[in-house]
Amino acid sequence: MRKGEATREAILERAIGLASQVGLEGLTIGRLAEDLDLSKSGLFAHFRSKEALQIRTLERAAERFSQVVVRPALAEPRGEPRLRALFERWLRWPQAFRQPGGCIFVAAASELDDRPGPTRDCLVRLQREWLGVIATTVRGGQELGQLRADLDPQQLAHELYGIMLVHHHSSRLLRDPASGARTRAAFERLLADARNPS
Amino acid sequence: MRKGEATREAILERAIGLASQVGLEGLTIGRLAEDLDLSKSGLFAHFRSKEALQIRTLERAAERFSQVVVRPALAEPRGEPRLRALFERWLRWPQAFRQPGGCIFVAAASELDDRPGPTRDCLVRLQREWLGVIATTVRGGQELGQLRADLDPQQLAHELYGIMLVHHHSSRLLRDPASGARTRAAFERLLADARNPS
Repeated sequence: MRKGEATREAILERAIGLASQVGLEGLTIGRLAEDLDLSKSGLFAHFRSKEALQIRTLERAAERFSQVVVRPALAEPRGEPRLRALFERWLRWPQAFRQPGGCIFVAAASELDDRPGPTRDCLVRLQREWLGVIATTVRGGQELGQLRADLDPQQLAHELYGIMLVHHHSSRLLRDPASGARTRAAFERLLADARNPS
Repeated sequence: MRKGEATREAILERAIGLASQVGLEGLTIGRLAEDLDLSKSGLFAHFRSKEALQIRTLERAAERFSQVVVRPALAEPRGEPRLRALFERWLRWPQAFRQPGGCIFVAAASELDDRPGPTRDCLVRLQREWLGVIATTVRGGQELGQLRADLDPQQLAHELYGIMLVHHHSSRLLRDPASGARTRAAFERLLADARNPS
C-alpha cells in the first residue's frame, strides 16, 4: 500500500513536468509510461483513463502550488508584503517545482479553453481559486489601510494575473532577457496605483 | 492558376479558425481535409508538409491581422488615438476574422514555446513585430508630447500585451462576463500613468 502510494506520487510529479512541456493533451498514459520506463498496464492500474490522469495531475500541481507559493506567502504579514510574496513566489514556482515548460496552469489554460469536460472544469475551478487568493490578499491590505478602499480586489487580481501571463509569454516564447525586470516594473506600477496616498 | 490560388486561400482561412480551436499541433492535413471535405492528396498538393501548413497558416493570419487591426489603426491620428484603436481592434479581431477559439497567436504561444523549429521561429517573429507596432505607436505619442518622455515604449508594449493576454484567459477559459470591462479599466489605468501631466 505505502509503496503503491509512493509510486503514484512519483508518477504524478513526473506528469506535472511533462504536461508543462507537451500540454495535458500530450500527457497520454503511453507517453508517460515510456518516460518513466514503466509498463502501460502498470500506469492503467493507477489511473483508469487519460482524463483521470489529467485531472489528478492538475490537482497534484495545485497541491504543490499551495505548498510552494500560497502557504509560505500566508506566513508573511497581511496586505502588501503578502501580495509581494505571492507575486515573487509565483515567478519562481516553475523552477521551485520542476516544470521545464513553465507554469502548468498557464500552459493548460489556452489548451483547454475550447475543450469542454471535467479536465477543463477542474482547471477553471483551480484558476478561480488562485484569483480568489489574490483578491483576498488585496482585501487584507484595504482593511489595514495600505491599499485604497475604492479599489476592486477582483480588478487588481485580474491585472496582476495579466502581468504574470505576459511574463510567461515573454520569458518562455520570446526568451526576452528583460522579461523579469519588465514584469517587476509592471507589478510596482500596479502597487503604486493601488496604495492609499499617505 | 487563379482557381488554385482561391482554393489555397479558402483552405488557409479555414485553417486559421481550426487552429484557434485545436491548436497548431492539432492542425493536421488529415483533419483539415476532413473539415473541408477535400482529399488528403489534394491538400498535400497545396502544402507539402504539416509544418509548411502551420507556417502558412500563421503567416496568413498575420496578413489578416494587419488588415483588420494594424492598418485601420494606422489611419487614426498618431499617439493615443492610434494606441486606442490598436487595443479595441485587437479585442474584436477573433470575431472580425472568424476565430472561434480566440486569437490564434495567443493560442499558439503557449503551445509552441517548448517546440523549437521553424513554426516557433515564425510565431516569435510575428509576435515581436506586433509588440514593435505598439512600441512605435507609443513613441509617436511621446513625440507629440501626449505621453511621458521618460516612458520605455517596450515596457508599455509588454504591459499592454499582458492586458490582452489576461482578457483572452478570463473571457475564453473563465467565461467571465466582467472580462471586457476589467480589460478596458486596465487599459485606462495604463494610459493614465503614461500621459504627460498637463
